[in-house]
Amino acid sequence: MEFPKENFSEWYNEVIEKAGLVDKRYPVKGMHVWLPYGWQLMRNIDEFFRKIFTEHKHKEVYFPLLIPETEFKKEAEHIAGFENEVYWVTHGGLDPLDVKLVVRPTSETAMYPMFSLWIRSHADLPLRIFQIVNVFRYETKQTRTFIRVREVHFFESHTAHATAEESEEQIRDNIEIWESIAKKLALPYLLVRKTDWDKFPGAAYSIGAETIMPSGRTLQIATIHQYFQNFSKPYDIKYLKEDGTHDYVHQTTFGMSERLVGAIVGIHGDDRGIVIPPEIAPIQIVIVPIVTKNKEGVLEEARKIEKELLKYFRVHLDDRDNYTPGYKFYYWELKGVPIRLEIGPKDIEKNQVILARRDTFEKIAVSRDEYIEGISSLLKDIQENLMERAEKEMGSKIKEAENIEDIKSHNGVSMVHWCGSEECGHKIEDLTEKKIIGTPLDEHSPGKCIICGKETEIIAYVAKPY
Amino acid sequence: MEFPKENFSEWYNEVIEKAGLVDKRYPVKGMHVWLPYGWQLMRNIDEFFRKIFTEHKHKEVYFPLLIPETEFKKEAEHIAGFENEVYWVTHGGLDPLDVKLVVRPTSETAMYPMFSLWIRSHADLPLRIFQIVNVFRYETKQTRTFIRVREVHFFESHTAHATAEESEEQIRDNIEIWESIAKKLALPYLLVRKTDWDKFPGAAYSIGAETIMPSGRTLQIATIHQYFQNFSKPYDIKYLKEDGTHDYVHQTTFGMSERLVGAIVGIHGDDRGIVIPPEIAPIQIVIVPIVTKNKEGVLEEARKIEKELLKYFRVHLDDRDNYTPGYKFYYWELKGVPIRLEIGPKDIEKNQVILARRDTFEKIAVSRDEYIEGISSLLKDIQENLMERAEKEMGSKIKEAENIEDIKSHNGVSMVHWCGSEECGHKIEDLTEKKIIGTPLDEHSPGKCIICGKETEIIAYVAKPY
Repeated sequence: MEFPKENFSEWYNEVIEKAGLVDKRYPVKGMHVWLPYGWQLMRNIDEFFRKIFTEHKHKEVYFPLLIPETEFKKEAEHIAGFENEVYWVTHGGLDPLDVKLVVRPTSETAMYPMFSLWIRSHADLPLRIFQIVNVFRYETKQTRTFIRVREVHFFESHTAHATAEESEEQIRDNIEIWESIAKKLALPYLLVRKTDWDKFPGAAYSIGAETIMPSGRTLQIATIHQYFQNFSKPYDIKYLKEDGTHDYVHQTTFGMSERLVGAIVGIHGDDRGIVIPPEIAPIQIVIVPIVTKNKEGVLEEARKIEKELLKYFRVHLDDRDNYTPGYKFYYWELKGVPIRLEIGPKDIEKNQVILARRDTFEKIAVSRDEYIEGISSLLKDIQENLMERAEKEMGSKIKEAENIEDIKSHNGVSMVHWCGSEECGHKIEDLTEKKIIGTPLDEHSPGKCIICGKETEIIAYVAKPY
Repeated sequence: MEFPKENFSEWYNEVIEKAGLVDKRYPVKGMHVWLPYGWQLMRNIDEFFRKIFTEHKHKEVYFPLLIPETEFKKEAEHIAGFENEVYWVTHGGLDPLDVKLVVRPTSETAMYPMFSLWIRSHADLPLRIFQIVNVFRYETKQTRTFIRVREVHFFESHTAHATAEESEEQIRDNIEIWESIAKKLALPYLLVRKTDWDKFPGAAYSIGAETIMPSGRTLQIATIHQYFQNFSKPYDIKYLKEDGTHDYVHQTTFGMSERLVGAIVGIHGDDRGIVIPPEIAPIQIVIVPIVTKNKEGVLEEARKIEKELLKYFRVHLDDRDNYTPGYKFYYWELKGVPIRLEIGPKDIEKNQVILARRDTFEKIAVSRDEYIEGISSLLKDIQENLMERAEKEMGSKIKEAENIEDIKSHNGVSMVHWCGSEECGHKIEDLTEKKIIGTPLDEHSPGKCIICGKETEIIAYVAKPY
């Protein structure tokens, strides 16, 4: 690695490339090629999405990529929020299309015309679906791998409910799902309600999960939106109630993206490369044979170990014989494999293996008689340590601020009292040249608005977001 | 079902909708919504692709959807073959793009500029990658679900090799992979070399796997292409040889699509609905409790059975209590679940379950003491029976033809001798109003060209393709 993590921006770019997650040289700005190792990591995360959303009664579907302009334009706030950043398909072959098509930036306007056909009566509710797709945003800001790209690997769930109460219950369930995901990925976060001027176009309100990157800037890694009837009215999604009358459904959505990979890279990585939480690591254990003398004997033992471990873990045996063990250590540290297992002639004699932790670099010798259990508990330890370490690191970046100068000078998230008015909110943002990333969902405390001095219970998190 | 399978076209449209595979009412022609049941079927097929291609040393990647016009246009035959049917992205937000973007119709032109960066020396070869994505074709012909659509769920593998011999070896390996896939899906096929005027744009030659639908029309369900150096030259994909000189790589590809689902629907289905081969069925066994008296006792037993079976199979318990067993039989037959397991009070007494086969409608009673084994072997039987039945059916649709009239009057594939010349080939096609779908890979026999009378060993398959 050329750059230490201290130089976060340069380090981030370098580590992504060297760890073999993506190749950024694809000749369209903001679009990259997912390489096998990076794609496997993303797919492991996707598989967890599938598992947990299925447990929470969602079904997986796939909606078309292209959305007719006519459907796209039905909800006014939504289209206004997106029209500067959608890609337009205007021609099929050599002919102009009768109706232009939007390359989906998110799928409300693709899905909801179908919802209005699917939902007839209360028996059809709740409806809960999700899809894992790519979405497209013509970003005008500077692009950054995983964090701000033009083709985004995206998860979106959409639900429809009979009543506002039930849709609120879904929001709570979504928060619970998010907690499991964050734990799986070992990502700490702040849960915030977005300001009105920063909510999702068309939403009644939006909840963001915000993490703090080592640079002190916040990164929104999940969003949960309450639509109530904002979309069901323009898209005419009505159902027959038990009392014989009709009503519009209440809707919610939940979105996440490849930003999660960006957060993992940024938060857990170190000067030697990325560090992947064991739960989602493409390779949990890499076996490096320490071959000096007795080459065949050691390799044979390594293959035996690989076979034993493959029953329980995601394992890779690095048996390349044109590289030294030292090079392999460097190579797999860069790629963030949680445990390196070393096996050499001396270890065979002693009936042991050496386990090296990627998170702390600690090395321990474990007897072959109980090494499966040893590895199992070590993987759990690493997962927990990554989470704790990240939480501590994030906590250190959150500070209470007394005045505008405190906010400006703090490289992280500042907590200030805010009366909640849009006027004071914009003033905070203008004076600090930062953003209110949101207000905490459960935390309140008495204080005075930093701008107008009015008594308030509302706290605002102020930071520079990505 | 309104239509019997005899009325194939109408039956096909009806069964897809009623079985809940897709919803065709999406407001863009030729694009449909994949519903949970259909999507799970497609995803099971995808998972098998992943498994077998990984076993055959391919790695999964993801390339961007959008391809710059400049890259797209590098290989002349390729662009000529596609330019009438690609979707063009011309605008980002409100601005026209500097370089127009093609929505991928297939990924050669996205991948190969990167290959030229990745491949440096013989040590980088062979390169074998695949991706599972959607591709887009602006079809001008009539669209038909799964068979001819504008957004296609697609599998594509791409390989690069040092020599022509090694790329030929890859073609043989691809054929072996295809055989496993066809077996998994219980699909019979003819393996053919496409005519020169029908090969893939840019390929040196193309091999097609063609199945015959009940309508007698052929459906190309997989294609394997040999490019040799046709792409590596325009895309400048060179490698350093051991002797110190440089050479262009030799490339192959392998493509399959959601057409496989269309073939499964068409070939295995019957008057009661679709029939899904057990190996890829979203649900292999549906449990229908026969509830008359002792409702709770039967349901409890059904739940116990579900729990036992879930350890080994993909199982669903239909415990809806607002539907009769008769309705549930009808419902799950329509959806093609291979085995229905019935459990009622009498069965509980007798310590047995009833298994009903979807393929033959046969019902058998199996003792609870050995029902796991019973189900296991029954699933195998059904898989094999579907394959055999389909092979027999397909065989009956292939006939030798002596003259043009024979071909015209035969509703299926006609085998005729052909000298191999493009002139006679076009004449066969024009006179019969059918197509030469290809020539068999391994079969030869002496005979005379049906057009010019010249002695030849070449056989042509002539049929009406979808």
